This record gives sequence, structure tokens and C-alpha cells, in this order.
Amino acid sequence: MMATTEKQRSTRATVTTPTDREIRIERVFNAPRDRVWQALTDPKLVAQWWGRGNKLVIERLEVKRGGHWRFVEHSDHGVHGFEGRFREVTPPERIVQTFEWDGMPGHVTIETLMLEDLGDGRTRIVNVSLFHTTAERDGMLQSGMEGGLNESYAALDKVLAHVVGRVATGEEQSDRR
Amino acid sequence: MMATTEKQRSTRATVTTPTDREIRIERVFNAPRDRVWQALTDPKLVAQWWGRGNKLVIERLEVKRGGHWRFVEHSDHGVHGFEGRFREVTPPERIVQTFEWDGMPGHVTIETLMLEDLGDGRTRIVNVSLFHTTAERDGMLQSGMEGGLNESYAALDKVLAHVVGRVATGEEQSDRR
Repeated sequence: MMATTEKQRSTRATVTTPTDREIRIERVFNAPRDRVWQALTDPKLVAQWWGRGNKLVIERLEVKRGGHWRFVEHSDHGVHGFEGRFREVTPPERIVQTFEWDGMPGHVTIETLMLEDLGDGRTRIVNVSLFHTTAERDGMLQSGMEGGLNESYAALDKVLAHVVGRVATGEEQSDRR
Repeated sequence: MMATTEKQRSTRATVTTPTDREIRIERVFNAPRDRVWQALTDPKLVAQWWGRGNKLVIERLEVKRGGHWRFVEHSDHGVHGFEGRFREVTPPERIVQTFEWDGMPGHVTIETLMLEDLGDGRTRIVNVSLFHTTAERDGMLQSGMEGGLNESYAALDKVLAHVVGRVATGEEQSDRR
């Protein structure tokens, strides 16, 4: 029963609105913080989860202050580009970056992503998005964001399980021979 | 006396703070609106005034919705990059774009630029910048922005006088032969 409760708790993202221009997202992952950091910043791993199973082309991912990122997602519903720039990169605990979708160019949010080591092999991600206006924030909330977010995080769960699994069984090392 | 008063009025930018996250700039130029629009959007002309006399490399200037812009200014004090993306382009009256300085990456303002035809051969530019936070807005106000702005606008005056002069004397046409 304990295991089930833990799993349920970790697989739902909690979405709240702490101020009239912010969205706060919280989610626990069953992996150590260094592994979560790796899955968030290594292009090969990001490509496996960010697009929720859709093909994702990582055009740029320069994980450093001032660096740019740009991802293009290819789904049945079309091609969608996303881009931004890193304001702050502090491994393995904090990333501040901008976020912009090609469909609404020039509408830019500031995402502050915090990784908290829970001390038991799990990691809590807290992501606060700051919008220029309340209308833009509300537009994001009504866009079906939460469903897409949970799909991405479920895909991230699988990436983390795979990475951890490979290390635990020594597969990663054997691949290099 | 009238001429002097007109000239004085048109060569000072008025800087105000209509809300706690905005800066509003207003300035009258002695040129028709189409000419001002051209000087704001044609890379060859922008290069002549935006950098206030410093060398300005226009790396990108895609004046359309979703297009990007990036300018690099080379001065005695160093190399400074600036960039952003167009949210809205409505010739010859309105541009909405983002603005970001490489020195503070990920700090993004929304600039709404409006060109008003004064009906007497002059054009009023109104530019409202929206910041994510009041602290960022105040930082911009304290950065010496107003001096740099007036230098840029003085350089724009010269570009406009030159462009208008060439057309009035027919030089532009003779250059093409």
C-alpha cells in the first residue's frame, strides 16, 4: 500500500497560481537530483521526453547563462517551434530561462525551475512561470497546458527509470566497450 | 521664434512611467510617417542611427510577425549584443517586439512602438516598454538609458533629414542610373 501511495503522489503535477501573473508547477520524480538534472539538460535525453512521444528536433540547447534553446515538435497536429534563452544555470539545482511558442511570437514567460533533493533518492521539481500579463497567464491555463505537462512528465518518468536502470545493471558501462 | 520652439520641442524625448512596470517614451520627428517607418525597418538605415555613431552589425532584422532581430554594437566600451522577436508588424503605424540585452540575458521587455502622423509632415513616435518586474524597470531607468536614447534619436534625425533631402533633390533617382 505504501508503494502505491508514493507512486500516486509522484505522478500528478500540482498546478497553482500563487500570484495573478504566475503559474506554479510541482512534481516529485523517483530519481536522484543529478539524474533529473541530466534528463533536463542533455539533448539526447530531452529529445526522449519533452515532446511527449512526438518527434522532437533539438535545434539549439546551450545550457549556460546567455545560451539559447530551440526545440521543434513534429506531431500529427503540425509542427510547433519553441525557444528561449537561459538567464541562470546552477547545476544541479536551478535553471531560469525564457519560454516562447512560435504560435504566439513575442509572448515571453520567465521559467524558474528548481530541483529539490528529497534525500531518499527522489527529487521534487518546482517550476514557476512568470507572465507579462494576467491575460497571457490565463490563456496558458486554458490551453490544455496541464494535460500536456503531465504527458511530458510521464515520459520523463520513463527516461529516468531507463537511465537509472542502465546504471544499476551496469549496461551503460558495457555499451562503451 | 516659432521655428526654434518647434525644433526644441521635437528634439527632446519625454520619458514617463505610466505604471509600475512600464516606461513610456515620446518624441516628435521632422519627417513624414512613411520615412520614419523606413528608417526604423530598413537595415541599411537602422545601421546608421541605432548605434549612436558606433559601428552596428545587423545580424538579423526580419520585420514580420515571428521574425527575429539581432544587432551587435561595437563601441570603445566593448561589444554589446541586443536581440528580440517581432510580435506584431503593422506598417506604417505599429510594431510590437521583444527586447533583450546580452548583458542581462533572459530579461525581456515588450516594446510597443506607435507612429502617429501629425498631418504637417512630422511624426510622433510613442514607445511603451513593459517589464516583467518593477525592479527590472527601475534598473533600466537608472542605466543611463535616457542619454543613450536621445543620442540615438539625434542620429535618427540626421538619417531622416538625409533621406528626405535625397528625395527632394532627386538624388535618389540619379543614384540608380
